[in-house]
Amino acid sequence: MVHPRVLSAMAKPLIGHLDPAFIELMNDTARLLRQTFLTENRLTLPISATGSAGMEACLVNLLEPGDTAIVGVNGVFGTRMTDIVERCGARPVAVEAPWGRIIETEAIAKALRSHPGTKLVAIVHAETSTGVLQPVEELGRIVRDAGALLVVDSVTSLGGHPLRVDDWLIDAAYSGTQKCLSCPPGLSPVTFGPRAVEVLHARRTKPQSWYLDLTMIEKYWGDERVYHHTAPISMNYALLEALRLVHEEGLEARWARHQRHHNALKAGLAAIGLSLASQEGHQLWTLNSVAIPAGVDDLAVRQALLADFNLEIGGGLGPLKGKVWRIGLMGESSTVANVLLVLHALETVLPRCGHAVRGGAALEGAGRAFAAAAGATG
Amino acid sequence: MVHPRVLSAMAKPLIGHLDPAFIELMNDTARLLRQTFLTENRLTLPISATGSAGMEACLVNLLEPGDTAIVGVNGVFGTRMTDIVERCGARPVAVEAPWGRIIETEAIAKALRSHPGTKLVAIVHAETSTGVLQPVEELGRIVRDAGALLVVDSVTSLGGHPLRVDDWLIDAAYSGTQKCLSCPPGLSPVTFGPRAVEVLHARRTKPQSWYLDLTMIEKYWGDERVYHHTAPISMNYALLEALRLVHEEGLEARWARHQRHHNALKAGLAAIGLSLASQEGHQLWTLNSVAIPAGVDDLAVRQALLADFNLEIGGGLGPLKGKVWRIGLMGESSTVANVLLVLHALETVLPRCGHAVRGGAALEGAGRAFAAAAGATG
Repeated sequence: MVHPRVLSAMAKPLIGHLDPAFIELMNDTARLLRQTFLTENRLTLPISATGSAGMEACLVNLLEPGDTAIVGVNGVFGTRMTDIVERCGARPVAVEAPWGRIIETEAIAKALRSHPGTKLVAIVHAETSTGVLQPVEELGRIVRDAGALLVVDSVTSLGGHPLRVDDWLIDAAYSGTQKCLSCPPGLSPVTFGPRAVEVLHARRTKPQSWYLDLTMIEKYWGDERVYHHTAPISMNYALLEALRLVHEEGLEARWARHQRHHNALKAGLAAIGLSLASQEGHQLWTLNSVAIPAGVDDLAVRQALLADFNLEIGGGLGPLKGKVWRIGLMGESSTVANVLLVLHALETVLPRCGHAVRGGAALEGAGRAFAAAAGATG
Repeated sequence: MVHPRVLSAMAKPLIGHLDPAFIELMNDTARLLRQTFLTENRLTLPISATGSAGMEACLVNLLEPGDTAIVGVNGVFGTRMTDIVERCGARPVAVEAPWGRIIETEAIAKALRSHPGTKLVAIVHAETSTGVLQPVEELGRIVRDAGALLVVDSVTSLGGHPLRVDDWLIDAAYSGTQKCLSCPPGLSPVTFGPRAVEVLHARRTKPQSWYLDLTMIEKYWGDERVYHHTAPISMNYALLEALRLVHEEGLEARWARHQRHHNALKAGLAAIGLSLASQEGHQLWTLNSVAIPAGVDDLAVRQALLADFNLEIGGGLGPLKGKVWRIGLMGESSTVANVLLVLHALETVLPRCGHAVRGGAALEGAGRAFAAAAGATG
């Protein structure tokens, strides 16, 4: 779901990509993006394509042929990073964990010790494919002490979970607009810290992508305003409005909202015998990975939710296919109403699909959790 | 300018990128894109980024390290293509012409003879930086007989000038949404013919860009619907609506409108002593490159047009900087009113900037041209 103010922004008449009014919009956007990433990084801007292009932008700008990159692989997006690392002519060292579990910090530290000279460590903060929240805050010092850069995928965490780029010593991060920022898909915010910028400027070769070449894009977003490509004007209108909404709510309040609704959903699910499939203590608030009970038909449930309740939940990916459902509660969609609706829908549909449920149990569970949260803060 | 129906489409609520309704929209879009490119090519779809990404998509998918690519270079976009060819690890053979003139067909033929085994010839149909229309229809047979692929940049011609992908034996073409299709910038339509698809599928190496890898993207747009990246939903809404508008007008009628307005502008300019800087007989209808008269201050005129008439015209690029103005008449902006407004504005501003003009002369010139065109068809 996207806020009506963002949809209205999409429909604003267009201006030129070098118009002074657009340049002011770019400055406002960069400023609000910095406040969202919690960084002072000058090089903070939206890449003119969706989140995966942000991933590619970070990797192609920082890696050169022959470099080594340690990649945390415990889901779709870590796997994708190793693919891109290879396309850079660099060598990926995959540090793997089962899908649904975090990459242990010590496993990264060990990989750094056994691969001296590693150029960067790339890891997914919020693995959308498994619902796992990686404790990236533990990695910054270790990676920096090893002389490498820390690159973080924050597609499903930016604006939904605490993410502190500067405090956590993250050198480069990318995100997407369509997750917790609640803007249509189409742009990928990225931020490069001073160490990453230094690596970028010291390259011996041009980045393999012209479109994503930050040495050129930074001249358009910087003071020079040198034309690179035509920016997607309407998408930038929408992103600015979405960022304004984030900061009208306040980052901390927004994080707390995501946490509260996740807890209520989890409590409601528990009340009808459903548990999260992702590792306890490392569960995303924004993407809830639910273990499908034995004997329940994955597709039948999802189709009933869509047909009867107009509710789309995700299926499992890769090794989790048929084993989990993925319930997103991101940005504007992380609402009390959505939590209650999906629980009501599951209570209604599951008994028809072989999983006995007492009517109202899930809703009661969520209600108790909301009450407890209100008590804790009230 | 973008049609209100397209702006409204941008503001439509979002649906999932694998939702059946979105898949129907993808099918409709691909069908209308084929009708616009005048091709039967199955692999016809919008790349999820702006026009330059379409350029990069064509080149990174067709070239492999060590390949030779002949590139026509007579402006900004040919120059950009040689840069991307180099980043592919391929060898660009630049066939150059002065900015403002076409690349002679014979020069391409000669380059093909002296570089046997050339993988592709890449050329710009409508050079936005110079206002030149390249006669690409002469190239198809020559390139095919040499065993190479013909790749055409149609960013500023698709929907504004005749472009017949199949008839002209074009193997791959890309465009942008924000020129003659009058959609906001953000997508790049591309089409790959059977010979290009064959080259794509016979690659020894992965394309260097994951985001632009058509072997993966074709599975999302094809029957498999395999998730690749999250499509920019709203931009796709807008493109479909823009394509509907193109075909409600009719391609031939749309081309004729662009031609008529170009002719009227040219006649009006001639009446006040201004001539087009691009090669006679090869002038774009969509982008009019006007020679700045001696003694006239480029920037002063452009600033006055913007301040007094809210009219933005482009300055010259590269070697044409300070020598030409570039007046776009594309898509929804190619209107009688815009032709008359820019002529009136120039008539008003030029006398203050050192170029004597008889008031009303330019408008009269345009009026005569419109009358002649109406007589010819009425």
